[in-house]
Amino acid sequence: MADDPLVELAGRLQARCIARGITVATAESCTGGLVAHLLTEVPGSSGYFAGGVISYSDAVKRAELDVPAELLERHGAVSAQVAVAMADGVRTRLGTDLGIGVTGVAGPDGGSEAKPVGLVYVAVAGLGPADVRRLVWSGDRSANKRDSARAAIELLLARAEAGSTA
Amino acid sequence: MADDPLVELAGRLQARCIARGITVATAESCTGGLVAHLLTEVPGSSGYFAGGVISYSDAVKRAELDVPAELLERHGAVSAQVAVAMADGVRTRLGTDLGIGVTGVAGPDGGSEAKPVGLVYVAVAGLGPADVRRLVWSGDRSANKRDSARAAIELLLARAEAGSTA
Repeated sequence: MADDPLVELAGRLQARCIARGITVATAESCTGGLVAHLLTEVPGSSGYFAGGVISYSDAVKRAELDVPAELLERHGAVSAQVAVAMADGVRTRLGTDLGIGVTGVAGPDGGSEAKPVGLVYVAVAGLGPADVRRLVWSGDRSANKRDSARAAIELLLARAEAGSTA
Repeated sequence: MADDPLVELAGRLQARCIARGITVATAESCTGGLVAHLLTEVPGSSGYFAGGVISYSDAVKRAELDVPAELLERHGAVSAQVAVAMADGVRTRLGTDLGIGVTGVAGPDGGSEAKPVGLVYVAVAGLGPADVRRLVWSGDRSANKRDSARAAIELLLARAEAGSTA
């Protein structure tokens, strides 16, 4: 995968984080571990990447990421609020500077009128106020996962470049 | 990735687990999320896959997978004992029937005479006594991750086919 543009992007994130002493953790639902897989394709990723949680079920979101049950009930697992709570939860749990949260409907099943297949929320927490993006992809399951992972790494990179490390 | 043989293998695991009502969780160190990514490439994987923990650092192995510090000190993070503790830890934490643990040296750095690059331990826990395999790969980082992920999915499949669900 040396010629994968997403691994190249992960390499840029790694260089930036190591240069600034920034550590990262991942909380993934619909991407199912792909973000962490891409980050760890780059040799030396243990220099800034602590680890992550794949919270495919709501129970894991509550128990391992401290996402409040009330948030899941009120907004649903695929929501901006839960994405932020996942990012903040994994960052707090793993003691890193930055946390990324990804939650969405990868498809082909699980969509609804309000939350269609391809809807994904990506949130970053740490080194400033939490930031969240709402995205809607139109690919198949695998493409939606990749597009979401790219958005997550881009959001981390933007924060690693702009965020205060005070 | 529809033509990826590892996704096809994940599909066989999924069919077997759903047919037998077996749930699965992953604890990954050197594969960095790749096992979970492959499992979740298959539509409907939420029917048996609860989630997982990527424990890149020893601190995460202790705090999020309950791997005893004494085990890490005595045997090192790359050991049969820690692989079993990771598999058992994630299974207990996430409340699944099966847990898989993967720990090793993906390379190109981090190897030693006793624990060379390519050395990986893969363990399965649940539905019977824990089982662990010691493997030594000779590829690059990306190939070692893929070979380890294949071994992990094969070990899960063997247990899902043989294990008692009593």
